[in-house]
Amino acid sequence: MSAKPKAHLAPGIEDIRQAAIRLAPVAVKTPMLESPFLNELAGRRVLVKAEVLQRTGSFKFRGAWSAISALDETARARGVIAYSSGNHAQGIAHAASLHGISATVVMPADAPAMKLSNTQALGATVVTYDRVGGESREAVGEALALEKGLTLIKPYDDTLVIAGQGTCGLEIAEQAVAMGVDSADVLVCCGGGGLSAGIALALEADGPGFRVRPVEPENADDTCRSLVKGARVSNIGTPDSFCDAIVTPMPGELTFPVLQRLAGPGLTVSDNDVLNAMKLAMLRLKLVVEPGGCVALAAALRGESIQGDAVVCVVTGGNVDEQLITQALEVESIDPALG
Amino acid sequence: MSAKPKAHLAPGIEDIRQAAIRLAPVAVKTPMLESPFLNELAGRRVLVKAEVLQRTGSFKFRGAWSAISALDETARARGVIAYSSGNHAQGIAHAASLHGISATVVMPADAPAMKLSNTQALGATVVTYDRVGGESREAVGEALALEKGLTLIKPYDDTLVIAGQGTCGLEIAEQAVAMGVDSADVLVCCGGGGLSAGIALALEADGPGFRVRPVEPENADDTCRSLVKGARVSNIGTPDSFCDAIVTPMPGELTFPVLQRLAGPGLTVSDNDVLNAMKLAMLRLKLVVEPGGCVALAAALRGESIQGDAVVCVVTGGNVDEQLITQALEVESIDPALG
Repeated sequence: MSAKPKAHLAPGIEDIRQAAIRLAPVAVKTPMLESPFLNELAGRRVLVKAEVLQRTGSFKFRGAWSAISALDETARARGVIAYSSGNHAQGIAHAASLHGISATVVMPADAPAMKLSNTQALGATVVTYDRVGGESREAVGEALALEKGLTLIKPYDDTLVIAGQGTCGLEIAEQAVAMGVDSADVLVCCGGGGLSAGIALALEADGPGFRVRPVEPENADDTCRSLVKGARVSNIGTPDSFCDAIVTPMPGELTFPVLQRLAGPGLTVSDNDVLNAMKLAMLRLKLVVEPGGCVALAAALRGESIQGDAVVCVVTGGNVDEQLITQALEVESIDPALG
Repeated sequence: MSAKPKAHLAPGIEDIRQAAIRLAPVAVKTPMLESPFLNELAGRRVLVKAEVLQRTGSFKFRGAWSAISALDETARARGVIAYSSGNHAQGIAHAASLHGISATVVMPADAPAMKLSNTQALGATVVTYDRVGGESREAVGEALALEKGLTLIKPYDDTLVIAGQGTCGLEIAEQAVAMGVDSADVLVCCGGGGLSAGIALALEADGPGFRVRPVEPENADDTCRSLVKGARVSNIGTPDSFCDAIVTPMPGELTFPVLQRLAGPGLTVSDNDVLNAMKLAMLRLKLVVEPGGCVALAAALRGESIQGDAVVCVVTGGNVDEQLITQALEVESIDPALG
């Protein structure tokens, strides 16, 4: 067993394996899916890691459980706090509730209605902040943590959270190889980079033939541009995107060096690519995926700058309101059989 | 290894285990999912076996692969034929194509558009018949089989098909126990009874604390009424139901004696129950489920005549056209948080 990781460092592979042991009794081992229809459209095999089926409807439960389950009993009993656009919020709320402890979550007042109401229903106390007006969620979260003695669990710049997300990468390596694929680009929907970095670290150890490539919306491509520049750069302003789950100001301090070392070039997709991928996910994979959780599948279907006979992509979250599901179903499909 | 099963008998547990071995390299081991929101609504744990994630979007791939993979090489090379409302059709088309053999499928002319086009796209030759006018698919299928030397693979009254569907039951026993549930009603969407019988036989061996209960639409409740009467009775006329996948004239010859011996009382649900379950499957489980694949979840949520702290249900198919997805999203939800 490894020593407890330092909170200011990216996790090592042993931290990810320990997180996998803590997650095993509670997390869903999400399936890797494939559709002959999507393969045909993409011109190569498309393996889809279905993290929308994770508890709370996104991979974020992995990091939340990893962090909360590793706290010492005294700190844990005082409760936890997080800031989140909604999926980390639900992961923290549910993981805290399963541990029988309290959770406070700082969320943007304009987060999707389903994410706000789910987080409360899962037992957390929700405090909203003014995202659009530029209020800092970090400042709100850190002030509350200090005031109430709560442990702050950051959405991506946290060693134990990255280790938890990395467990998804261990599964990808195992499942893709079992399906006959041992080298491919692994496209990952990317906000702050916790999942991308975690998967990259897991694959470095367990799947050296695989390479993570972060995927972002065109107007929130901070990670793509940072990788090109070789240094962290911000998004311009506060991008207005329906990919709310992955719009973060800039890559994380812990996550970016990992991506710089291990990831391939980033990819971007348009809103229309995303709506199309959502429609195909519903009709071909039977999965409901939110916009921010669908950018990697959108890039896989577009296929631009991807090489090889196969590509892996992670559909990361499915917490979407009805109105957006209907909007996606109405889009003119890139699949001529669907129209 | 068991001897090859007789085609006119229900399979034994060894036939189901052999089918599982043949399926292991190709089939999806579908996850067992749970949502705290659905548990809350149902007043007990609801474990959902997500067969919509099986290849071709329904459990039918299991039976199709089981049957085709067990044929001797000479018979297999001549090709196979099936009749089906659409899901068995796709299972047969895809399993045949993966084996590199031809498949002919007899389908009702009024089958959902997606099922007709998918079956063709998966490589089968589709022959339509006039279901509403009372033309017999069995007669059409048997005539074509004879004429062309094809092996007929029936949708449920076939030993190897029932054995294939039974592999779902082996997984249910293993997964439910791993989630802390070792006795419960297992609700199964029921048409001809192939899946219900297969699961019942698997659970008899591997999960004696579980009991299958077939679920049907109110106006196509032939299995329910047959179980009450102790003999096979037909539906009245040709029920007009959007649960097309499970509207069959009467329980199967091979399947009914199994259900009579092993299943608990049947359950029925209304169209509104089904639409509600479809909406909740999308928003709470992130799964797209077709009406006929959702009756078991609908019964689990209604809870009528179910006992115990947990219930298992199988969502069996997800091949649904957009318009029905939208219709389900528009229904007034039984979940007050969704409206």
